[in-house]
Amino acid sequence: MDSCTFCKIIKGEIPSKKIYEDDKVLCYMDINPVANGHLLVVPKKHVKDIFEVDNETFNHMMDIIKNKITPILKEKLKIDGLTIIQNNGYGQEVKHLHIHLIPRYNNDGFKSEYNKDEIKDIEDTFKELNG
Amino acid sequence: MDSCTFCKIIKGEIPSKKIYEDDKVLCYMDINPVANGHLLVVPKKHVKDIFEVDNETFNHMMDIIKNKITPILKEKLKIDGLTIIQNNGYGQEVKHLHIHLIPRYNNDGFKSEYNKDEIKDIEDTFKELNG
Repeated sequence: MDSCTFCKIIKGEIPSKKIYEDDKVLCYMDINPVANGHLLVVPKKHVKDIFEVDNETFNHMMDIIKNKITPILKEKLKIDGLTIIQNNGYGQEVKHLHIHLIPRYNNDGFKSEYNKDEIKDIEDTFKELNG
Repeated sequence: MDSCTFCKIIKGEIPSKKIYEDDKVLCYMDINPVANGHLLVVPKKHVKDIFEVDNETFNHMMDIIKNKITPILKEKLKIDGLTIIQNNGYGQEVKHLHIHLIPRYNNDGFKSEYNKDEIKDIEDTFKELNG
């Protein structure tokens, strides 16, 4: 998509530090890293989010993350943990599907908070799943 | 594993509000939800994290999340977004692989912060991936 920052990175119109690339997926260093080794994995095809991506592309992204990238993060960067985050819709800054790989280090001071809303019992919402 | 809280939930020794269950995977309401509709997806087999889980189990978890659970979250709960988080090692409270599905709502006040460490150029770390 012409106006999409990540499409521009994929096309090389915006420079990036590439970690891995194949015909479907690009992995590069986040331009605003929150930790050393903070990477993004994106599909080359412009899709907005998990609700829009096809299974084949999504499965390929997860395969690359699980079997190619995270083992190297773990082995070579001396990380103490790894947080994988994927935002969709509200909370997603760039509307091109992306998965954050964020190395964690002991005492990295990570904190998060929400304005906790009213928690309802939503079991019934899902009853169709359990036949 | 006998001492594992999530294994006890899977065996029914600790009660939970179940959303979805099959022979490999359980999805239930997080016992300490940060937002309405906060769910956890866990494999029934005790594995610690993404580095330990086999591909078949992991792929099945992702398939259930993408194709069964998140479409219902989106359609029925009037969410404005969805954040998917998976912690490994440091930052992971229960050492049984689990994926958080956290519905987001406009102005939910979510904030996160890290003590940002020195960001190094790690491209060389991954050069084996690019043959």
